[in-house]
Amino acid sequence: MDNFTFYSPTCFVFGKDTESQAGALVKRFGGSRVLIHYGGGSAVRSGLIDRVKASLKAEGLPCYQLGGVRPNPRSGLVYEGIELCKKENIDFILAVGGGSSIDSAKAIAAGTVYDGDFWDFYSGKRIENALPIGTVLTIAAAGSEGSPDSVITREDGMFKRGASGDAIRPKFSILNPALTQTLPPYQTAAGITDIMAHLYERYLTNTREVEVTDRLIEALLLTMIHEGPRVIENPDNYDARANIMWAGMMAHNNSCGVGRSQDWNSHNIEHELSALYDCAHGAGLAVTLPAVFTYVMNHDVMRFARAAVRVWGCQMDFDHPEVTAREGIEKLRRFFISIGMPRNFAELGAREEDIPALVQALCYGNGRPGSISGFVTLDEADCEKIYHLML
Amino acid sequence: MDNFTFYSPTCFVFGKDTESQAGALVKRFGGSRVLIHYGGGSAVRSGLIDRVKASLKAEGLPCYQLGGVRPNPRSGLVYEGIELCKKENIDFILAVGGGSSIDSAKAIAAGTVYDGDFWDFYSGKRIENALPIGTVLTIAAAGSEGSPDSVITREDGMFKRGASGDAIRPKFSILNPALTQTLPPYQTAAGITDIMAHLYERYLTNTREVEVTDRLIEALLLTMIHEGPRVIENPDNYDARANIMWAGMMAHNNSCGVGRSQDWNSHNIEHELSALYDCAHGAGLAVTLPAVFTYVMNHDVMRFARAAVRVWGCQMDFDHPEVTAREGIEKLRRFFISIGMPRNFAELGAREEDIPALVQALCYGNGRPGSISGFVTLDEADCEKIYHLML
Repeated sequence: MDNFTFYSPTCFVFGKDTESQAGALVKRFGGSRVLIHYGGGSAVRSGLIDRVKASLKAEGLPCYQLGGVRPNPRSGLVYEGIELCKKENIDFILAVGGGSSIDSAKAIAAGTVYDGDFWDFYSGKRIENALPIGTVLTIAAAGSEGSPDSVITREDGMFKRGASGDAIRPKFSILNPALTQTLPPYQTAAGITDIMAHLYERYLTNTREVEVTDRLIEALLLTMIHEGPRVIENPDNYDARANIMWAGMMAHNNSCGVGRSQDWNSHNIEHELSALYDCAHGAGLAVTLPAVFTYVMNHDVMRFARAAVRVWGCQMDFDHPEVTAREGIEKLRRFFISIGMPRNFAELGAREEDIPALVQALCYGNGRPGSISGFVTLDEADCEKIYHLML
Repeated sequence: MDNFTFYSPTCFVFGKDTESQAGALVKRFGGSRVLIHYGGGSAVRSGLIDRVKASLKAEGLPCYQLGGVRPNPRSGLVYEGIELCKKENIDFILAVGGGSSIDSAKAIAAGTVYDGDFWDFYSGKRIENALPIGTVLTIAAAGSEGSPDSVITREDGMFKRGASGDAIRPKFSILNPALTQTLPPYQTAAGITDIMAHLYERYLTNTREVEVTDRLIEALLLTMIHEGPRVIENPDNYDARANIMWAGMMAHNNSCGVGRSQDWNSHNIEHELSALYDCAHGAGLAVTLPAVFTYVMNHDVMRFARAAVRVWGCQMDFDHPEVTAREGIEKLRRFFISIGMPRNFAELGAREEDIPALVQALCYGNGRPGSISGFVTLDEADCEKIYHLML
């Protein structure tokens, strides 16, 4: 196992009606002038924004609002948010929504206290300072509520890139599974896929002898396989929603990924798809993961066989481990289809003729060296073949 | 799933040679005058205390020492520590050792900033304030390095009782698995047992539909079953030590126990044994757990069958689930014996004629109402029968 530091000082307040604690939590973590940052109309229509505002008002906390965050959040709104925070002397950002609202809030939080262009952080600079943020989560997916990460798309070039730093870990996150019950099935399924992808990205490691994190990742995958179909079948199943929501946080706060190398090639390959086609990140991952795994499987057949046996309940073929490995990948692919995710480029709305542009953006965009690295290193030719596997 | 709050703001610094970061970490978390609190001579003889002192000195931090913490730490030394901290204006306590040193440090940290008798906290009062503490862990067992809990034995009456509060969660914990390589096999095995007990205490729940935490607990138990025998066979196996050490932390920081009722009857029943006979807590648990589980099994046969199948690899007997449940408990019992733990009262150094006194202390000592409660409520007669099962 590799040396590591694990520091997850987010206060998670989980359960029914917990959004009513937003005001008290902002106060506890030092906020006095709050920006509420959120997405489309559903958080407004459902009354959630009003409930959060009432909670802030009860604590005597003035608040400003900035809505309009879209899926695959854009840099334009981040610049707008930074300007607003500076003008109104905001000292706490409360994101209400899913990964997009939270990631956008993180970018604003870092950009507000930085003299340069916030995009520097999405080009490799580590985030050292930021305004404190809190979250009220409305979709179990990105894990951004407990992570030090943020992903933003820059309109100029449509690059989707990530930034990181302990300073943007939320001070608190309010997780009320009931808020996810009104999600459309497609978004629920995309969230389930994203969570499973976060687990697989950590599972694909070149570090030996990491049984504890292997087992924890497998545990969370097993949870998703059990709860995912239950929540698709019955969107009002609170307990299934709750299990998925906690699994989503645990999948990405890195408690299960410490001390081991991780992959993240699949995320990078998918980011070009959602940047170009504006598809749901999870939907892109459903098409990407089986293709990537099929392509890299021979790098470590036993790792894929392990997942097949322990997670997917396959019988181990001791004479032909590659058969078992392939069976596990196939079960993953069928699982995504069973919960309503797209199975290929066409269903995703992607086009074969864009593959050269996708490969170019993936391998060279925003300063990349002509390849991406993780579980294996993938150059232009590899990435092209992987996109072709998705057709 | 029940509503819950999860807040684990400890910074874990994990891996080889990490004790050299002690000084920098104390400084980062605001310490300026440090008490190093530790146990017997081994931390001194091994040079660990000297390395920690050198690290503090390099940061210009004056330090005081208080050694002599014994297993099943006593209130006498806590009073001594509180006096020393007040006299020397200590503002940070650094525990070097296992659960005993850490628990003793927590008691001192809470008692130093409290006007009354620190024992109030071990009689039910919640800890709200404490000096900040850090830890350098030398045995994977108690999980105190990441928990808000402390257990102390009061000499007057020999009651062993727990206290709790977020204020005593360590600011940082240094986990170097190599430091555990010199432990005698018996202590290593007692630590393994303690970790597994922390997992079972959370597994035995009356809350329905908590798949995610069920799976996480099972993952950590599977890790212990895999790594435990490897480390007993080869004490120098760094990776096995590392897996056990992270499992030990995860087993007790409650990330796997949230949103569900928990048991803790076994811990309470064992505490009377280690209080009276001064045996290793883990050794006492090895004898206690199978007896308690056998006694309470019928309260929820399917829960024990689930553990038997998922953790112990038993075949499910669908016609007679109780057979499977019993088989799982028997496998647990044999596992403890296989790593060198005692199997009964005699091997533990306990005596049948003390059972009435044990039951009395357990059910009535320190203000208890004549019973203990958890997975099931156990009265005097139940507890007497359970102690008899251990003969």
